[in-house]
Amino acid sequence: MKKSMKKGLAILLLLLTGTLLFAEGQSESKDMSLNESAAQAKYVFLFIGDGMAMPQISAAEAYLSAKEGNAANQKLLNFSTFPAQGMTTTYAYDRFITGSAAAATAMATGQKTAIGVISMDPGKTESYKTLAEMAKEDGKKVGIISSVDLDHATPAAFYAHQPSRNNYYQIGVEAVSSDVDYFGGGRFRLGKTPEGEKNIHELMAEAGWTIAEDRDSINAIQAGTEKVYCSNHGFADDALPYDIDREADDVSLAEFTQKGIELLDNEDGFFMMVESGKIDWACHANDGASSIMDTLAFAESIETAIQFYNEHPEETLIVVTGDHETGGLTLGFAGTGYETDFANISSQTKSYEYFDKFVLTHYLEAGSSDLEGLMADIEKYFGLTELNDYEAELLEKAYIRTVAGDEAVSNATEDKLLYGGYTPLTMQLTHIQNNRSGMAWTSYKHTAVPVATFAVGAGEEMFHGYYDNTDIFTKIKAAMGM
Amino acid sequence: MKKSMKKGLAILLLLLTGTLLFAEGQSESKDMSLNESAAQAKYVFLFIGDGMAMPQISAAEAYLSAKEGNAANQKLLNFSTFPAQGMTTTYAYDRFITGSAAAATAMATGQKTAIGVISMDPGKTESYKTLAEMAKEDGKKVGIISSVDLDHATPAAFYAHQPSRNNYYQIGVEAVSSDVDYFGGGRFRLGKTPEGEKNIHELMAEAGWTIAEDRDSINAIQAGTEKVYCSNHGFADDALPYDIDREADDVSLAEFTQKGIELLDNEDGFFMMVESGKIDWACHANDGASSIMDTLAFAESIETAIQFYNEHPEETLIVVTGDHETGGLTLGFAGTGYETDFANISSQTKSYEYFDKFVLTHYLEAGSSDLEGLMADIEKYFGLTELNDYEAELLEKAYIRTVAGDEAVSNATEDKLLYGGYTPLTMQLTHIQNNRSGMAWTSYKHTAVPVATFAVGAGEEMFHGYYDNTDIFTKIKAAMGM
Repeated sequence: MKKSMKKGLAILLLLLTGTLLFAEGQSESKDMSLNESAAQAKYVFLFIGDGMAMPQISAAEAYLSAKEGNAANQKLLNFSTFPAQGMTTTYAYDRFITGSAAAATAMATGQKTAIGVISMDPGKTESYKTLAEMAKEDGKKVGIISSVDLDHATPAAFYAHQPSRNNYYQIGVEAVSSDVDYFGGGRFRLGKTPEGEKNIHELMAEAGWTIAEDRDSINAIQAGTEKVYCSNHGFADDALPYDIDREADDVSLAEFTQKGIELLDNEDGFFMMVESGKIDWACHANDGASSIMDTLAFAESIETAIQFYNEHPEETLIVVTGDHETGGLTLGFAGTGYETDFANISSQTKSYEYFDKFVLTHYLEAGSSDLEGLMADIEKYFGLTELNDYEAELLEKAYIRTVAGDEAVSNATEDKLLYGGYTPLTMQLTHIQNNRSGMAWTSYKHTAVPVATFAVGAGEEMFHGYYDNTDIFTKIKAAMGM
Repeated sequence: MKKSMKKGLAILLLLLTGTLLFAEGQSESKDMSLNESAAQAKYVFLFIGDGMAMPQISAAEAYLSAKEGNAANQKLLNFSTFPAQGMTTTYAYDRFITGSAAAATAMATGQKTAIGVISMDPGKTESYKTLAEMAKEDGKKVGIISSVDLDHATPAAFYAHQPSRNNYYQIGVEAVSSDVDYFGGGRFRLGKTPEGEKNIHELMAEAGWTIAEDRDSINAIQAGTEKVYCSNHGFADDALPYDIDREADDVSLAEFTQKGIELLDNEDGFFMMVESGKIDWACHANDGASSIMDTLAFAESIETAIQFYNEHPEETLIVVTGDHETGGLTLGFAGTGYETDFANISSQTKSYEYFDKFVLTHYLEAGSSDLEGLMADIEKYFGLTELNDYEAELLEKAYIRTVAGDEAVSNATEDKLLYGGYTPLTMQLTHIQNNRSGMAWTSYKHTAVPVATFAVGAGEEMFHGYYDNTDIFTKIKAAMGM
């Protein structure tokens, strides 16, 4: 009898508790159907490290760890600790090794396209709608930020539709009338203006954009200002300088991102794409130190988003990914075997490009003709001293080749493998510098290894697993409830 | 009135449905607390691809895709489709680039140890308890399977405790009296028996192990047989042959795994570690085709576990990971730029080792002295025809170096970079073969890039994210409820 009473009570409790449980479940699913956005990502950051795959991330982490005397990877980048993580395949419609245009199109529109095409179909007739355009239609503000030229393939794929990534002027023209509320980072290429046409800055001014080109002017722009274009550029071109070369006046990618948050923050939410474009450029040139420093600068720009996320954790989604690997970077070199020395990376003080433009060119122009006279600068900029015989031989060969130009090419195939079309001496210097640290490269182009994707916030759970770059679009779109 | 009736009915339905829902939930959670193993991983497979990181996985997938004329990675390996996926750091206690002993110790015991140490502390005085030992204490059966010698570092770390991985005989002695119920794969190294001692096979026979050394004998062992040691070996050593060299009589890793399932399946569950050890060996030798074929053979052995999982989905956990990357493999080569040709991998028909031992050695012993006489075999085994000038020059240099031995070394550092201590001609052949496909290497040792981990089944959700190899232990232990 007692037992059956207990059983009855248990059933009653079950009924009551069951109802509560069920009610909870029901109210949750109700909330979701009634007011989808409440459970969805209102503020979305998509961070794209151009040329950044696991080797680039691990190299930066190894450097941080080694600086503190630890075995790597004991120091992780902020985004490496995000709760969701996946691997992402990158192949293009027509090539296994993708390019930035096809990869950005995949992430912006969910469609595979041909190499070089910007958010159009492989046949180059149909335009694909982008995440940024959808977000705008959904009432959100849109920001496009890049450390390289804003008409470069990766940013372009979010607001333009062109049969070729090289249509820089047309891409800029699309930018002027685009749905974008804030452009930040490198400049549109004014040098690509066709004869007789107004350049993109003139067109933007005419269309009412607020333009700022230095830190003070950028800082002076108030929240609430609409249609803002903030840019800055380095010594070499329209892109921001490599972070390793950045000086006090140069506005950082983190600052451009922070400004974007200030300008775009509104109750209807925003979609912001932030590209770190020079990780790719550094890796094309096999310059490991510059790649690492730009990866760390990328993490700093992500930090501004993390701070925003901390204030709006339920409504913010941050996704960090790469578009492809560049350079065939690995963390191990035949010459150093099982040993690495990532702390050695600190001994490089400027990028390959700075050395090329401000050191080597001047030295050669001054009529100097022996490598010996450059050794103090080689130590100053690459930290290279005590060259062994093999290193000395490689440098001498590269120097002769540099001074004599193509006449010194004894074997064109070997020349391509050794220097990849870059200044031979400078390439040899980055190779020796990297190899001593345990970093090595197999290419001067992109490679096909999948990239890593990390996510935190509303919808993060979708970013686990092994998926394709077109799924980045699908997942973000779903997270935004579009 | 009608409305309130409806409401009443709805509440009644809610109560009923709630009760059903709750009852279901309750019975599940009750089962968990009363009988933890029911909701936990009773059958656990840990598959370790030695030297297998994302580049090795992607190369295999690229090959599968290219064979069918697709851009890769349109064909995924079976484990790439597992629902849970993470990246795993591998560093050792005392080195960034790990070794198999330290990495296997991390996964087997959850502890970082020094390079070369087998499941002991870095000071080599304290033994760490392994997952296999814990599983045994928990009443489960234990299987240890490897395509290489069973006293090799990776399998050893699950059942032995030694200050050095090179203590092969002592590792074998530990195997004899270990908790392991089934050993399958390569042989214990009988050649390491100290003078005057019995070899491991003799000791196993004395201890009552059932020993089988060919397919028929292995097939003849009945389910229910206890303490079984099945082995097979290739032409070269105590390991299984490379899968690319495997002949009809050679027992495959998949067969050894299937046999393990047959022998270990029991109502108290099992823990099975399956290592594909020759992905690593192939990558040390920069032999991409052999690495790919062994990766595919590994996937076949995983397929047997997937079939078992399909029969016991609630109680089975399959984890697939690597211990480290080997060779600094990338999917892009400076000489081929953005192009790849993974279908070309099929044109290699035997491993570098087979070519070394059965082709090159015989040719040289026959007193032949020119490369020309080998060209037919080079075509037959590596598919290399129509060498360009640069390739021909590299081969000639490697051939002269091979024939003359170390006397032909003009530069020891360069020699190390070009051939890594392997037979120069053979290394040059694998390099040209791989490079033509778009695969390239930076080392003959391991590298430090994190590996990928995949999981399906009970506890799979723990395997998302970016974590350390010691966490593989922690997660499996938790999944097993130990």
